[in-house]
Amino acid sequence: MNNIIDLDKKYVLPTYARADVEFVSGDNARLVDANGKKYIDFASGIAVVSVGHANKRVNDAICKQLSNITHTSNLYYIAPQARAAQKIVEASGYDMKCFFGNSGAEANEGAIKIARKFGEKDGEIKRYKVITLQHSFHGRTITTVKATGQAYMHNYFGPYPDGFVYAENIEHVESLVDAHTCAVMIELVQGEGGVQPLDKEAVQKLAKFLKSKDVLLIVDEVQTGVYRTGKFLASNYYDIEPDVVTLAKGLGGGVPIGVVMTTLKDIFSAGDHGSTFGGNFLSTAAACEVVDILNEMNESGELQKNIEYFDSELEKFYNAHKDIFTSKVGIGMMCGLRVKDGETLAKIISNAREEGVIVLRAGKDTLRLLPALTITKKEVDEGFKSLNSAVTSL
Amino acid sequence: MNNIIDLDKKYVLPTYARADVEFVSGDNARLVDANGKKYIDFASGIAVVSVGHANKRVNDAICKQLSNITHTSNLYYIAPQARAAQKIVEASGYDMKCFFGNSGAEANEGAIKIARKFGEKDGEIKRYKVITLQHSFHGRTITTVKATGQAYMHNYFGPYPDGFVYAENIEHVESLVDAHTCAVMIELVQGEGGVQPLDKEAVQKLAKFLKSKDVLLIVDEVQTGVYRTGKFLASNYYDIEPDVVTLAKGLGGGVPIGVVMTTLKDIFSAGDHGSTFGGNFLSTAAACEVVDILNEMNESGELQKNIEYFDSELEKFYNAHKDIFTSKVGIGMMCGLRVKDGETLAKIISNAREEGVIVLRAGKDTLRLLPALTITKKEVDEGFKSLNSAVTSL
Ligand SMILES: Cc1ncc(COP(=O)(O)O)c(C=O)c1O
Ligand SMILES: Cc1ncc(COP(=O)(O)O)c(C=O)c1O
Repeated sequence: MNNIIDLDKKYVLPTYARADVEFVSGDNARLVDANGKKYIDFASGIAVVSVGHANKRVNDAICKQLSNITHTSNLYYIAPQARAAQKIVEASGYDMKCFFGNSGAEANEGAIKIARKFGEKDGEIKRYKVITLQHSFHGRTITTVKATGQAYMHNYFGPYPDGFVYAENIEHVESLVDAHTCAVMIELVQGEGGVQPLDKEAVQKLAKFLKSKDVLLIVDEVQTGVYRTGKFLASNYYDIEPDVVTLAKGLGGGVPIGVVMTTLKDIFSAGDHGSTFGGNFLSTAAACEVVDILNEMNESGELQKNIEYFDSELEKFYNAHKDIFTSKVGIGMMCGLRVKDGETLAKIISNAREEGVIVLRAGKDTLRLLPALTITKKEVDEGFKSLNSAVTSL
Repeated sequence: MNNIIDLDKKYVLPTYARADVEFVSGDNARLVDANGKKYIDFASGIAVVSVGHANKRVNDAICKQLSNITHTSNLYYIAPQARAAQKIVEASGYDMKCFFGNSGAEANEGAIKIARKFGEKDGEIKRYKVITLQHSFHGRTITTVKATGQAYMHNYFGPYPDGFVYAENIEHVESLVDAHTCAVMIELVQGEGGVQPLDKEAVQKLAKFLKSKDVLLIVDEVQTGVYRTGKFLASNYYDIEPDVVTLAKGLGGGVPIGVVMTTLKDIFSAGDHGSTFGGNFLSTAAACEVVDILNEMNESGELQKNIEYFDSELEKFYNAHKDIFTSKVGIGMMCGLRVKDGETLAKIISNAREEGVIVLRAGKDTLRLLPALTITKKEVDEGFKSLNSAVTSL
């Protein structure tokens, strides 16, 4: 293991504050590190490994695809891309079309490009402003950094593109819409911002208002999407009809993929947007299998059962430690506990790793839990047992 | 096959002008479409499938990795990421560190962020301008679209970030450098711009000038990198020492991956940049195997032999058709033929597909050939035979 840490320090730019652990294998919600130590994974690579580590169905689908073909240019039809688009659109329940990129940031770049082109075409005044929320997170490209409503991130890398406006909260958005606004982009449950669900009524009211103003509603479902909240999209949960939705993390079960989907089916012409790897056979074959697995779990009721069990155990854990945690937050398998202070949170996370359970921070003071949607009762029980030890040994 | 085309039209945004063909399997430089028709692939998914379709070594490496683990967060050490970084840096011959993203566009976003942060830290005046070349192509995010020196692409999606300046040609760059310039970004062989190699002396002169002015030289090797020109980097071929290099296409043999590497090892601190999927086990395990394969081919002389054979057959083909082609261009396996006019080029490409060989367009009038670096003599012969038929049936 030392060897890998040395190599990393020598050859990889220090953009991550890595914890001192190197995982070498996994199985559903279980992980093993380079020293053979075992863990329960309540993080799933930040909501990526949606159907568990080393999922056999996904791996078989990928390896079968690779034995045929991994990649051709998007100059030709790609069968699993078309199939993945169909599955995603059908699962969403919206009448949309998809574009495939390779990450959440790329999906959001596509969404912003859609909004801007929508603004240019429509009416005399050029509409270009995109309103986002404080504490949002939309990615690490220069434009998505600027779209991210966290001022401390807007350093160094400017000049940034103009036209991003930040609302303090969902209620504040309406007052910021002006003649230059083409879109509002929101996460329905802010992930990096602290597992913060928006108020359902406020969202529905805003959606209605935006429709009346012909302003697009973009929902960034990079973290909330693909059944993370219990429905295929958090937008389904909020019962709204967005114009643009972005997906990434959980969609490929670990394979890089990003999607922007929209009701504006004719907004892009050939040449307006593109990606070399986007929609390749490998990523989209993986996405097809992931969506199939989760659709089946949803239809059989297994998904709902898993969510309920995790939630009930989290509730017990929360009730047992009200001296440390101030509230329980989130929806479905995107959940967390607010911790009384950030220092205690840091200790909990490192204690938890010591005790054999992987958990995350979100925002300043939120213990974030994003388990695989396939997590078993036994894994949940073991994870909370370790988390209990982590908290009692504070 | 009809079914997939219908699905694609129904569910995928029309950003690509797709040719009427759907490939279903491949083997090195061979492809088979949904009707069972066979092709020789002189395109490799636009320089992506560097070690051929369905490469057994790469697929075995990927499937072995998947059976262990596909993805964890970058909050933890990732062994194949550290190993891939080492292999890439060592093959480059430069003293650099790497950051992993998921595409060429993401790699270039990283490069521009490095340049901008370099410009902010250094001196009193904020330096933020990045000079790029006309006819360049750097990606499809809003910032890399603006970095791309093709005015027709700068529609719809503004406001774009300020600070990009376009030089007519490599000789013109020097006169544009001012007190606000932090970097110059170039492709050494312009890919999308028409397989246009820059003049070696002019590049070396510019590199020297930039060093004297403390302005960064970024080389976009998304298309030229990973032995495409015969050396690991085109920068090696040009015998220069860039400050920043970006890689993508050929690096993963078909798997989405992007890298920005730099001599500025301390430019980023933790939190300055990031990517959910970037550097994941799958992509970097694939990259390790691809680089190993190509390093071995380079050391054994096989790579050079493949390039020479392809070049000699291309030369023959060119000499036989000087009525159609005006010049032969490119370096190594990144090569092409200028066609007397764009209409003829379009016919050649579709005729070629009819005859069973896949070739590409670049710029307005260039027939572009980017075969797998592992292409066999037999595949080369068959490909040119079909290309001959395509041209004689014009
Ligand atoms: C809501 C949201 N949007 C966008 C992103 C960026 O995704 P990626 O890291 O894949 O570019 C993230 C990543 O954490 C996210 O949580
Ligand atoms: C030189 C160059 N840079 C950047 C890119 C963008 O790469 P990607 O499509 O992977 O984002 C390309 C793609 O064609 C390219 O040729």
